[in-house]
Order: sequence, then C-alpha cells, then structure tokens
Amino acid sequence: MHLSTATRSVRGSAIRDLLALTARPEVISLAGGLPAAELMPRARIAEAAAKALTDPRSVQYGETAGLPALRAVLAAHETGRCGREVADVVVTTGSQQALDLVARALLDAGDDVVVEEPAYVGALQVFQAAGARLHPVGLDADGMRVDDLERHLRDGLRPRLVHTVASFHNPRGVTLSAPRRVRLAELAERYGFVVVEDDPYGLLAFDGAPPVPVAAHSDRVVRLGSASKVLAPALRVGWLSGPPEVLAAVELLKQCTDLCTSSLTQAVAAELVADAAWFDAHLAGVRDATAARARAFTAAVAEHLPGARCSVPTGGMFCWLDLPGVDTTALLPRALEAGVGFVPGSAFAVAEPAPSSLRCCYASHPEGVVDEAVRRLARAAT
Amino acid sequence: MHLSTATRSVRGSAIRDLLALTARPEVISLAGGLPAAELMPRARIAEAAAKALTDPRSVQYGETAGLPALRAVLAAHETGRCGREVADVVVTTGSQQALDLVARALLDAGDDVVVEEPAYVGALQVFQAAGARLHPVGLDADGMRVDDLERHLRDGLRPRLVHTVASFHNPRGVTLSAPRRVRLAELAERYGFVVVEDDPYGLLAFDGAPPVPVAAHSDRVVRLGSASKVLAPALRVGWLSGPPEVLAAVELLKQCTDLCTSSLTQAVAAELVADAAWFDAHLAGVRDATAARARAFTAAVAEHLPGARCSVPTGGMFCWLDLPGVDTTALLPRALEAGVGFVPGSAFAVAEPAPSSLRCCYASHPEGVVDEAVRRLARAAT
Repeated sequence: MHLSTATRSVRGSAIRDLLALTARPEVISLAGGLPAAELMPRARIAEAAAKALTDPRSVQYGETAGLPALRAVLAAHETGRCGREVADVVVTTGSQQALDLVARALLDAGDDVVVEEPAYVGALQVFQAAGARLHPVGLDADGMRVDDLERHLRDGLRPRLVHTVASFHNPRGVTLSAPRRVRLAELAERYGFVVVEDDPYGLLAFDGAPPVPVAAHSDRVVRLGSASKVLAPALRVGWLSGPPEVLAAVELLKQCTDLCTSSLTQAVAAELVADAAWFDAHLAGVRDATAARARAFTAAVAEHLPGARCSVPTGGMFCWLDLPGVDTTALLPRALEAGVGFVPGSAFAVAEPAPSSLRCCYASHPEGVVDEAVRRLARAAT
Repeated sequence: MHLSTATRSVRGSAIRDLLALTARPEVISLAGGLPAAELMPRARIAEAAAKALTDPRSVQYGETAGLPALRAVLAAHETGRCGREVADVVVTTGSQQALDLVARALLDAGDDVVVEEPAYVGALQVFQAAGARLHPVGLDADGMRVDDLERHLRDGLRPRLVHTVASFHNPRGVTLSAPRRVRLAELAERYGFVVVEDDPYGLLAFDGAPPVPVAAHSDRVVRLGSASKVLAPALRVGWLSGPPEVLAAVELLKQCTDLCTSSLTQAVAAELVADAAWFDAHLAGVRDATAARARAFTAAVAEHLPGARCSVPTGGMFCWLDLPGVDTTALLPRALEAGVGFVPGSAFAVAEPAPSSLRCCYASHPEGVVDEAVRRLARAAT
C-alpha cells in the first residue's frame, strides 16, 4: 500500500508508545503528560452535561467556529490575559487540533519553522506532517534563547512560524522571561513571521499569576489555549486567537477536518468557565495541589538523587532532570523494572539529543506517590 | 498574511454558509444535512454520561486509536455488516475526520482521485486540501456509473482512491446496486486503487436491511462509519475499518491531529451500541420516523410540484429534485422569502453544474412541517 509523504515524514510519538509500558499497575508513571484525573471536576461536569442535555441543540451539529456562548466567554478570558481586546476565538478539538490547523493554514512543504530544542513532540509531528524544515533554537532557565533566534534571523533565516511553549515549557519546565517575550514580539514584527504561542499550562502558574502572553505585545501572534489541563482532556476543547485571516483559514480547514467540535462538551466547558467564582476556586485548587506535587518531586530529587540537576518548577506539569553520566534511554528498562516510568530526554530532541536528561510529570500523582517514584528512580540509577 | 496552498485550494462549503440564512425562525430549512434532534436519545445519553463519569478514566486522555470497549463493539458490528471478520476499527472525531485522515495518509499533491458527480461537499473539500486531481464519475438511479469508471480505467486513469457514498447517497439519494458493488470491488483489485466507502447513512435503510457493504467483496476498501445519524452528532464519534497499514497510518496522523477522541463521548457511544436490544429498538424508531418523513416529502412533491422529478428515497436523509426549466440558484432567495430553504444542486458539482436541481433534507422535521415546506417551495417556484 502506497502511503503519503506526510505519513512517512511523521515520527511516531515515543511518549504515546511508552504509555502502554507504563500503564502496568505496578509502575508509577511520570512519563505521560497526564493531568491528575482526581482533580478534574467530574461531578460538576456530570451536572453541566445533564443540564446541557435538556436542550436539543446539545446533541446536534454546531457552528464550525464553535458554540457562541463558549467563544464569548473564552474571548473575554483572553482579553483579560492579554490586557487588550481579543475580539474572537475559534474553538478546536483540543489545542492539538488548533496547532495542526494553524500549520495546515499557513505552511507549504519546504517552509522554514523555528521550534524549541527540546520540543513538544506533538508540535514536531505537526510540522513534520506539513513538510516543514525545522530550525531548533535552544532554551535556558529563561526559556527560548531569543538572542540565538535573532542571530539566525540576522544570518538570513526567514521562518514562516516560530513555535513556543512560552509558559511552563513541555518538556523543559522553564518559562520565557518578560523581556524575551517583548523581544520575540518585536522580531515577529520586524521579520514578518508568526509566533505560535502554545499555552496549555499558563493557568497553572503556582503563584496564581499567569505570565503576560507574548500576544500582549504583537498582532503577529496566534495563541493556543486548552481546557485539558484545567478542566478535563475528555472535553476535547481547545481554542485559538490571532489575526482574523488566520482564524478564517482555520475555520475553513476545520470544515474538512471534523465539521465542528462536540456541542455537548462545548456547552459543558462554557457553563464551567462562565461560572467565574466556581472556576477560580477550582483553578486555585488544581494549582495548589499541583504545586504541592512539584515541591514533593524536587524535595525527593534533592534527597534521593543528589547528583541530579533539576529545573525549578513554577507552574505546569513537568520537571527536566539531568543525571550527569547516565544514559537515560538505557536507564528506562531498569527503571520500569524498579516500578517507575519517565521519558528519556532524547524523545524530545530536534537535532541535539540530550542523552543524560529525562522528563518527569509530577502532576499525575499525590505527593507520597511522587516521592516513592523518585526513590525508585534513584534505586534504578545507582 | 501568506496562506498555504491547501487553504487556497479548499472551496468553502456553500451549505455551511447557507445554514446561517436558513437558521431564521420563519424559514423551514431543508438545506442542512441535520438529523432530527428530537429523535436523538438525549435522556439515554445523559444517563450513560452520568454512569461513565463515575470512572476517572472518562475525563482523561485515552488511546489514540479509541476506547477499547468501543472499538470492540464497533468491530463486531462491522463484522456482522460485512459478513466476514473485521478485526479492528480506529475511532475518529466523526467520520469526517476519518475521511480527512485517510486522505492525508494515502494522498500526495497531484494524485488522482475519483469522486461522484454530484458529490458530498465535505469529501471534495478534503481532496482539495490534499491537492488531489479530481475525476468525477456520474450517478444514475443505481448509484455510481461503475461502467463509466471502468471506461476511464481502461483509458489509463490510475486513481489512488475512489470515493463513494454507496448507500443513500448525499446529495443524490440513490444507492449503489449489488452487482455494481461487486464490480467496483473487482476493479479495485485489478487496478490497485482503494475504495473509500463513506457510509454514514447505511443503518437508515427504511426496510431495516442495510445494503451489503462494498467492503464485503474486497480487502481494498476503507469503510467509514458514523454515530452522528443514528445516535447524535455531538458525540463526534466516527470510525474506519480497512487494511491494517491504512489503520496504522491513520492512527499515527491522528496523534498530530487531535491526540484522541473524547473518552467521555466514546464511553457513551460504547454503552449505547453495546446495549443491543435498546440500540435495535432505537434504530427502528429513527428509521420508521425518517421513512414517514420521506413519504410525506415525496407525496407533497407529487401534489404540489407535479412537474418535478424526484429521487425515490429508500433510506438516508436526502431527496434530489429536478425542476425542469428552473434555475434553482436564482430560486433560492425567492424560496427563503417564502419561508423555505434548500441547497441548489450546483453546490455539489465537481465539473458539471446541475442548474435545475436541488437537494432537500426531509429528515429534520415532522411530516406536517415537511409538507408545508414543499408547499412553500411550490409557491416560490411558480
């Protein structure tokens, strides 16, 4: 059977493949980017679903761009986040679909795209499928090395898109500093590229103050948001805001892609986000619980893996560990045997494998389990 | 802003644009392909959702290929339909996503694809986005003119895919005859193409006996199914079966597209389809109600539009009317003024506009409303 160039260009997600291994009940998985199911508001979702289902429109096809009530409340939210009016959003089937549709809307095969090194694997897959030429730019404790990006631009690189997980990076755990956000926006204006600000974790800022978006500083930013980390992945509700012509192109392509996102799960999301008092309290609960897990993780690393370098979590779901002298790909089978799963850093590599690094998701388990996971990891590593 | 070739290749759906016009409360819309919301089992969906939400897995990410329980029950269903073992299905976010992913998995820009004339607009959009070269083959009362297809093949056409809505065609209302199904399968084997058997309406056979699928006769068929017309569009549950390498490619591309379909709506669909006694009774109810609406439609056409030619509905949701001497695109604004909406036949054209034809969906309204809609159409047309 002849398969398309796109199919042959996409590297399967090592992480999704790993999930099967780490799903064994005796393994504590720090591998998946799974928000904690027990922190998701199942009772409130059931209540909102029952209420939505009293209306026949909840089971019907809906507008491709999304349920008007949800679009309105999300646009108001984004306006608050960006400190300037965000007139409209398009709702997507998770923010992964937003990313895919933005790539399909803006990229032709051979176009240049800047990605972070290491990168969110789902973004690499999207750009591989689009046939883009990837140009990695490294990260440090302040996020993307915007100075390195600027050097590439001065040297003649003219990317169509620059993709960044600016807040609480997956997999590196770092956040783009405020001055770098301003600079990145300036570069977008000067060199004519579009920034894709992929922001599923921003609302999980442990101090309760999400970073000011890159989109606050330029019109050349497409911002992607998601309900998956703050309500539930099973709603499959994501959204994007940005230049009107990008939104129009995404809406057109969404017609061919899945016609519309579920009217039912959109009604649930609208109900929950519009109930501001409830939503703020819920968010605070998720944030505080996740912060406690992050503290448990870093404390356990300091105690049991004293030689490790560990990113400092200030939000989101991930820590990036470096175990000097350890090959983490070789470590993984031993770790699984010891009852703990993680993702080797090289799974996120664009051009530069990180053989001694690994990504751990601390968000999926309560503190005691997180601590036990790190103990097991330490046993396997020594 | 530079937009991609794909974006510039897709023609917006005239039908989706029409929905705004026909949504005015004084207009009876026969335009949308909307199943009747009042026939959808809202109470049963609410019950199944409440039950699913007692399990934390219902709100979490799930496997890309779909919820195992749903895949199993759908594979068993397909096995029954095809009369031979269908080992596996991949669940998609509606069957529109299945179509899009099959195209992305198998097509490169410039590949030849055979479509029906007139065609399902969502399929045309998918193939336009893929950059395919479209080759239309006409339909008659027995569905696709497979003899015409064969002539093209003998003349040297080597399509990668042949797309067909073989049962209760959208928009033409006709069904591919049993001998033509066998012949189409033989041609797929001989000439090495893949048949995409797009089958959202098969279970709505008014006599309760869905046509034997094309996939019963060859391994070179990808079959697409949908819960939208038999349960509810808002579940966004579709599926595909076919050659294992196609399913594997689709699963890989689905990782980049939306990671997974909603665990919650999949659990609801699994619960409802697995309850065979309930599902059969529910299906019979939808089928009978839809058949009554179809009879009301054709009776009203015979009475009020005596000059019209009308397809004979035996299942599904659509009638295709021809009003000799009438330009249906010019008729539409007058019809909307008279309080009825439809889709002009030319909206479905690939190469051959059908200026005096129109598509009517009889499934969305009770018999009395359908009758009134045809009266209004007759008033506008004369």
